[in-house]
Amino acid sequence: MSAGLLSPSAAGLGGGEAAAQLYDGSGFRLVREPLPALGPGEALVQVELATLCGSDLHTLAGHRSTPLRSVLGHEAVGRVVAMDAPSARPGGPGAGSGTAASGIGVPGTVSACAPPIAVGDRVTWTVAASCGQCDRCRGGLEQKCRSLLKYGHEAVTERWRLNGGLGTHVHLLAGTTLVRVAEELPVELVAPANCATATVAGAARRAGLGPGDVVVVVGCGLLGLTAVAYARWLGAASVVAVDVDAARRASALEFGADRVCAPSELASAAAARGASVVLELSGHPSGVEQAVAVAEVGARVALIGSVSEGATTVILDPAVIVRRMLTVVGSHNYGAEDLLGAVDFLEWVGADAALSAAFTRAVSPAFALAELDAALAAAKGGRWARVAVRP
Amino acid sequence: MSAGLLSPSAAGLGGGEAAAQLYDGSGFRLVREPLPALGPGEALVQVELATLCGSDLHTLAGHRSTPLRSVLGHEAVGRVVAMDAPSARPGGPGAGSGTAASGIGVPGTVSACAPPIAVGDRVTWTVAASCGQCDRCRGGLEQKCRSLLKYGHEAVTERWRLNGGLGTHVHLLAGTTLVRVAEELPVELVAPANCATATVAGAARRAGLGPGDVVVVVGCGLLGLTAVAYARWLGAASVVAVDVDAARRASALEFGADRVCAPSELASAAAARGASVVLELSGHPSGVEQAVAVAEVGARVALIGSVSEGATTVILDPAVIVRRMLTVVGSHNYGAEDLLGAVDFLEWVGADAALSAAFTRAVSPAFALAELDAALAAAKGGRWARVAVRP
Repeated sequence: MSAGLLSPSAAGLGGGEAAAQLYDGSGFRLVREPLPALGPGEALVQVELATLCGSDLHTLAGHRSTPLRSVLGHEAVGRVVAMDAPSARPGGPGAGSGTAASGIGVPGTVSACAPPIAVGDRVTWTVAASCGQCDRCRGGLEQKCRSLLKYGHEAVTERWRLNGGLGTHVHLLAGTTLVRVAEELPVELVAPANCATATVAGAARRAGLGPGDVVVVVGCGLLGLTAVAYARWLGAASVVAVDVDAARRASALEFGADRVCAPSELASAAAARGASVVLELSGHPSGVEQAVAVAEVGARVALIGSVSEGATTVILDPAVIVRRMLTVVGSHNYGAEDLLGAVDFLEWVGADAALSAAFTRAVSPAFALAELDAALAAAKGGRWARVAVRP
Repeated sequence: MSAGLLSPSAAGLGGGEAAAQLYDGSGFRLVREPLPALGPGEALVQVELATLCGSDLHTLAGHRSTPLRSVLGHEAVGRVVAMDAPSARPGGPGAGSGTAASGIGVPGTVSACAPPIAVGDRVTWTVAASCGQCDRCRGGLEQKCRSLLKYGHEAVTERWRLNGGLGTHVHLLAGTTLVRVAEELPVELVAPANCATATVAGAARRAGLGPGDVVVVVGCGLLGLTAVAYARWLGAASVVAVDVDAARRASALEFGADRVCAPSELASAAAARGASVVLELSGHPSGVEQAVAVAEVGARVALIGSVSEGATTVILDPAVIVRRMLTVVGSHNYGAEDLLGAVDFLEWVGADAALSAAFTRAVSPAFALAELDAALAAAKGGRWARVAVRP
């Protein structure tokens, strides 16, 4: 694969032009695109920073199929530069939460709740557009919408060409929820909001994580590290973090873990006894097996990390689930309310200098959009939990 | 093992005497016991009918350890013949439900809610006594009480000798919830209330089974058959029942299944598509694997049948749980509120002559307490879902 030579800043993009890295299954080509004409309820966001998520790397490694050609990237923060006349009708999952949001509660639009999101606002947005009307959307699973369109995971079409985060702009479709992000929050903190952070928020909600819980986090990539801090934010009584990697374990302490241990030490880790919530973010079969094994009577175990169907199997004793009355929930992506929760959480993080620094240190210095090859190499290198691309 | 020769009716039991089959690990001995002096909040019930549950057979087969010596049997219905001065204080899980109940909400007693249960009432009772005060009881898992005492599964002590259903009387401890049973309901219908029926009620509650659910029931022993009817009672849109045995499948139709199929047919059974609730009652590893495989996006899968830790393992793809956002709950025994639900359900069954007949046909003609060997042989024979013992 090769990154194009065209640098957006050097490309002389006019006011009506955008640039994006278009992936064709074997490599990237930096293309210039006219800014789109927005349809009903759509918005155009100029990307401030995108971060490379593990699923981008999975796509490039051929572990997941993505319709081609496509603009990859979905974890990003940006600024609204155009909106189709939004209705001011309040609604959607964020209505009444006090955070400005727009979304699927107003089917077919991205119109804002009060205060409405306007051109110029710094925003994050749901990783997918949902119809708001199918049985799954109505049942609270909008991330499984029957007509879901997911940024960074779809083929470009004639009218939807800026459909991923690895470009100067993203063309947001009706059915996307936007959430305003405070200007003072570091960009490295908020760029992962709409994938890593909100996914953790969704899993914590499904696991019913709350005050007093004894929490075990298995796997300390960015989601695991975020989960450690998120559990603290929700009032967990204690948080034990587990990872095979010593550097990641050290990071987990900076993110607020009371104790860290290697997987081999978990069974004897006194602090992990009585786990009432276990969050499995490693995606490794032994991580899943340990997550169930360490769970106390009545515990909730959230599986998040295992995202590739057919890739792994786990061996479990079903009587452990029955006799301990465990609740094992699978959590994939998130709903609009979780993105609101993620932004609230990041504001709390932003008020804590040490914790905020721990989050921003997890993100690499930004590569230019034209330097995507170098960025991808850095992402595979694993020095940072996230590698950043600044178009 | 050998049943004693002493028949209770022929034993000339006085007003102050009871008889019970005492199990010593190798066989039974029919013993005569004085009626106990009741402690605070205790009750004495004269057994009308006991039914042999699968867990009794597991104990005899050595698949589960039971402290010895013990009176086995826990699935039974009876009549209150003595109570320690119950307080009339309303409370407990059944308060306000309209069904007379007493229980763990009033710690340390079996005192009745209004209308209070009184001597002479026909009753069913929770399969165990719970303290009502430990973290698990307070957390809604009284069946996992830290000082649980379970009828039919404990060693007899000096003062607690009638501690199982295979006797003329059961000595109920404080912390047991009693629920009144209507006199007109067939005894074969209500004897399983406090094990089979209430366990199904507890699992349905944990699975959130409700109106409109597309239900799959895996395993059609008495619990599975009960689950079919219970799902109907709760307003399921459809119920598919699965069993390896053709006779059990035929029974499932009588209990209200829309469709029945063999496990090998399940994957292609159109009616099972879109399953929103799956209840696994077979306890077989392939049943557990199928229960997860057939679950639709967002479905709840309740595991109930796998009760012997270390006995089996299952092989699952964790990404199926994650990407379909399944909720897999283990359900073991039940809480007091489930026994209330079970009795409400059985009243509904009792009003339907055909369904009531299907339930009563699942129970054998009653053996005398002294004929326990013959009863156990019949239970192992499998002709009936339950074999009855009438002391």
